[in-house]
Amino acid sequence: MALPRLLARALHRAAAVSAPAAPDFNSFVVRTNTCGELRSAHVGQKVTLYGWIQYQRQGLFLVLRDFQGLTQIIIPQDEAHSHVKKLLSNAPVESVVRVTGIVSPRPPGQENPKMPTGDIEVKAETAEILNFCKKLPFEIKDFIKKSEALRMQYRYLDLRSLRLQHNLRLRSRVVMRMREYLCNLHGFVDVETPTLFKRTPGGAKEFLVPSREAGKFYSLPQSPQQFKQLLMVGGLDRYFQVARCYRDEGSQPDRQPEFTQIDIEMSFVDQAGIQRLIEGLLQYSWPEERGSITTPFPSMTYEEALAEYGTDKPDTRFGMKIVDISDVLRLSDIQFVQNALSYPRGTIRAICIPQGVRYLKNKDLESLKESAKSQFNQEIMEIIRRPDGSLKSLLTKFLGKKQQLELIQALNMQVDDVVLLAAGEHKQVCSALGSLRLLSASLLEAAGLALRDPTAFHFLWVVDFPLFLPKAENPTELESAHHPFTAPHPSDASLLHSDPTKVRSQHYDLVLNGNEVGGGSIRIHSAEQQRFVLEKVLKEDSEVLSHLLEALELGAPPHGGIALGLDRLISLIVDAPSIRDVIAFPKSFRGRDLMANAPDYVTPEELEPYHIQVSWPLEEKEAKKN
Amino acid sequence: MALPRLLARALHRAAAVSAPAAPDFNSFVVRTNTCGELRSAHVGQKVTLYGWIQYQRQGLFLVLRDFQGLTQIIIPQDEAHSHVKKLLSNAPVESVVRVTGIVSPRPPGQENPKMPTGDIEVKAETAEILNFCKKLPFEIKDFIKKSEALRMQYRYLDLRSLRLQHNLRLRSRVVMRMREYLCNLHGFVDVETPTLFKRTPGGAKEFLVPSREAGKFYSLPQSPQQFKQLLMVGGLDRYFQVARCYRDEGSQPDRQPEFTQIDIEMSFVDQAGIQRLIEGLLQYSWPEERGSITTPFPSMTYEEALAEYGTDKPDTRFGMKIVDISDVLRLSDIQFVQNALSYPRGTIRAICIPQGVRYLKNKDLESLKESAKSQFNQEIMEIIRRPDGSLKSLLTKFLGKKQQLELIQALNMQVDDVVLLAAGEHKQVCSALGSLRLLSASLLEAAGLALRDPTAFHFLWVVDFPLFLPKAENPTELESAHHPFTAPHPSDASLLHSDPTKVRSQHYDLVLNGNEVGGGSIRIHSAEQQRFVLEKVLKEDSEVLSHLLEALELGAPPHGGIALGLDRLISLIVDAPSIRDVIAFPKSFRGRDLMANAPDYVTPEELEPYHIQVSWPLEEKEAKKN
Repeated sequence: MALPRLLARALHRAAAVSAPAAPDFNSFVVRTNTCGELRSAHVGQKVTLYGWIQYQRQGLFLVLRDFQGLTQIIIPQDEAHSHVKKLLSNAPVESVVRVTGIVSPRPPGQENPKMPTGDIEVKAETAEILNFCKKLPFEIKDFIKKSEALRMQYRYLDLRSLRLQHNLRLRSRVVMRMREYLCNLHGFVDVETPTLFKRTPGGAKEFLVPSREAGKFYSLPQSPQQFKQLLMVGGLDRYFQVARCYRDEGSQPDRQPEFTQIDIEMSFVDQAGIQRLIEGLLQYSWPEERGSITTPFPSMTYEEALAEYGTDKPDTRFGMKIVDISDVLRLSDIQFVQNALSYPRGTIRAICIPQGVRYLKNKDLESLKESAKSQFNQEIMEIIRRPDGSLKSLLTKFLGKKQQLELIQALNMQVDDVVLLAAGEHKQVCSALGSLRLLSASLLEAAGLALRDPTAFHFLWVVDFPLFLPKAENPTELESAHHPFTAPHPSDASLLHSDPTKVRSQHYDLVLNGNEVGGGSIRIHSAEQQRFVLEKVLKEDSEVLSHLLEALELGAPPHGGIALGLDRLISLIVDAPSIRDVIAFPKSFRGRDLMANAPDYVTPEELEPYHIQVSWPLEEKEAKKN
Repeated sequence: MALPRLLARALHRAAAVSAPAAPDFNSFVVRTNTCGELRSAHVGQKVTLYGWIQYQRQGLFLVLRDFQGLTQIIIPQDEAHSHVKKLLSNAPVESVVRVTGIVSPRPPGQENPKMPTGDIEVKAETAEILNFCKKLPFEIKDFIKKSEALRMQYRYLDLRSLRLQHNLRLRSRVVMRMREYLCNLHGFVDVETPTLFKRTPGGAKEFLVPSREAGKFYSLPQSPQQFKQLLMVGGLDRYFQVARCYRDEGSQPDRQPEFTQIDIEMSFVDQAGIQRLIEGLLQYSWPEERGSITTPFPSMTYEEALAEYGTDKPDTRFGMKIVDISDVLRLSDIQFVQNALSYPRGTIRAICIPQGVRYLKNKDLESLKESAKSQFNQEIMEIIRRPDGSLKSLLTKFLGKKQQLELIQALNMQVDDVVLLAAGEHKQVCSALGSLRLLSASLLEAAGLALRDPTAFHFLWVVDFPLFLPKAENPTELESAHHPFTAPHPSDASLLHSDPTKVRSQHYDLVLNGNEVGGGSIRIHSAEQQRFVLEKVLKEDSEVLSHLLEALELGAPPHGGIALGLDRLISLIVDAPSIRDVIAFPKSFRGRDLMANAPDYVTPEELEPYHIQVSWPLEEKEAKKN
């Protein structure tokens, strides 16, 4: 009869090994438990807890808090413990204390089912105040309501909040799982690349770092792009890095001058290979409490995304897609319609806002139209479907019954729906309607219509981007849609010489709930093709990239990669309004550290080794004089 | 009879789970195997390999290389495969190819037992040249002999070497294990802290980063010291980060302007707690092929280290300790001895070089003495024990028989040993002898004496450092021996007010084979004590640290931490001569990137947004003019 027991034990061991054990938070320290750990099973044990006083009442009890939870501590009232009572009664809220005592069941009826430790309390026997808290600059309870500037100034107090503790710990956990997937399961090598580098040609957004050689500067790169490609040339085969990146954009809401990307590059891989890798990565690292995600992710071409959603990062959690109604209206006798359709890429398109009549006020509709006008220079016409089924619009008098019916069918218009219609050039029309689609979705939700499931995560690949775009300042010249190392689509490679504007790229974006959370490409690995793109298409001086071109000549393998924007990804997972909520010490939108006051003035002597001096703007010069 | 089989299966599963599976290097790509993978068991399989041509011989066979190894490819000779033969015969060495073929046993007698894949070869059926390699700037075989500057310029070629592949992959693996230990086993949170920060007072070694606000600069911090302490105030409890740090020291051999440290901080911990944590961390992450390390590590006070090894980072792999012979010589009638002993910390000390007569030449001994003179301004006297047991030295005529015998016993002098003796002030004498100890060990080893086991790893804690040191430029003023946040030793706290020079700190260094690989401390958590240290002892303006002082007032827990120098640690593990051998893209010792040529000049227009201009040194101004 020994075998079954042995079997059970063996199976138990197998299970114990496969389920990762919880971390031991009490190793290397004196505490026996965290403040979130004690249950009825611990009753009778002598425990030592460390934490912050969350609340204290009339010298009778207090609530002790640490990163894991809250525990109720009963303050002893007998004469023998009068010093303990005195200590604990007089310590201000947020003071740091050690308490040793016995775990006891709460008196019947006083259990708190909302509190994980709500079945027990700890009867304090000894206590020590490790640090008194001076008067707080505000009540912690009201902290969340304080201005963000104040919360940034006292970031260490904000970090004690449940919300930030949760966000930062989840971030750490997700990144750890990503590392396990990449490193342990798929043989990627974590390689640290330099951040003091050479300025990228046209790298206007790169911070400069003066060196001790007069006139020479390092640059903080926006990504390890060149290095990761050189690692492939160096035979590293599979590289990843949780990479710190820098971007100087001046003041930008919800951008940070330094940010983090999960940076990945592989040799001998194609687009599908990278996509399957990333789907597996996200599935593996996805936090359990956020449900599961299904793979493969759907995919959409850039052209489809623009046509149906008016953007290259569609929010596919809801419908309201853009509908092409050019054919419905083509035969009508409407001036602006005919006008629009006469242009090469002229089109008539519309979105249908469900129940718009009931959920949107007139001023909402006006503001939508104004926004299209001011942001996209696009006129919008509205059509409403009345309760009797008929259409109300300035257009209707120009449309026959049949056309009206076709319109209703094409847009699937129900009673009380509102249609926004735009006519003009394809990209402008789609972009304007794409923007209105998102704005009206927010308006509908604000008015109480449940449109997007707040717990849903819709991943989407957007592919087949154009390789080049006309420059904004001079449309006869081309620039890279992403970066000059992106490989052309294999089917379009011959167009590179004849009509580069028509070449699609092997770039892919990963979109989550309408946010770009990643992007990458298969890279050019032929020196000849890379030189052609730089010199002939982009008309750039290839000399500054001579080291890369030379590397491609000396045995560069085909390779490709991707980078995921970690801050954005985590903020979407935890449903935070800003990436500042998933960064321990974020900068303000002006790029300032409000806690330590950075950036700050330095003395001319400190600038001397770097051979630079400040060019003061005139008014500041004057102010300094006075 | 089903049970035993079930049992076996369960046990097998348990074993399979507990032993981490090897990573799958062939996921997401077309290759079936890496070039290091095929064995006799694969014979008959059709495989697809990707790699670099390492070697090709007369159109008969070639050796294909990737990160995992080498595989011999047989080039087909029959007419039907003539195109394959043509392709593979004409591709230059280091070209990138795909080969598909059948795994076959090598003909008897042609197996290569030195090659892991030496039992098989792959008979190529199809092949593709993915990238031709142009003429290499030098033969790869000779690369190791080339100048380091050339290897840095073509770093991507150097990265293909077995040596660098091994170093970078081991580094990645060790860091991954460290993360598992910290994050998964002990509940540490990986938190990324900013690198664009405020200048530390007196932070002369910090790189500056100009901001878009005129005259204001960020600084790249030398470590996340302030942030990690603020995380503890924020209740994060256990923090770690593989942190990028910056240090501008101008030209320094074997220093890098950016480097990496394993940065750790814990709340509610004492010195012993941090030490046990680090011992466990290193034991857990230690690469198997380097043997195992035993814990706990030995510990030594700063005073002991200085007295016995003449340094705060003793190499304990060998003896030759410094011996105090003051008492032996005290009664002698030697002028310089009496002179030295008359000073407050006067001492006579010596080291004994085993078999020095046989292994050291006269010029070696002269150079040792000269180095003590030039570096430490310390005179050295030598004593030799002759084959007949007697002593030969300028000293002997002043010493009686008994004194000579005492000297021989105190230093355990054998025949042919050489003793180097120094008299003077304690610290100077010990430092000079400590330096001579290391120099003579290298000389002995160069001459063929096996002194230090090259496979041995001797970890050592050095503790009880002084908290403050006299400033070099003005010894009446004090500066922090490490940094101003280090807590005083609990037994010495009262001395802080009466005699700060006598206060020992709660700082600890981790030393490996005579190299400092880590350092940390328990920090001051009392705002009052921190303010006293800054204002009264160090006479610094505490205003620049007001945010930290305020944080200590608002519920800072007791805390401490450590940082391990990752580059140095890994270079010692792989026995690399320089940290440049464990960094993918290191800078030269002048801080230059020789591959991309950074730092580099930028245009005045690029400096404009940052309100700075270059102050050209005069001669450069002149050169620019001409």
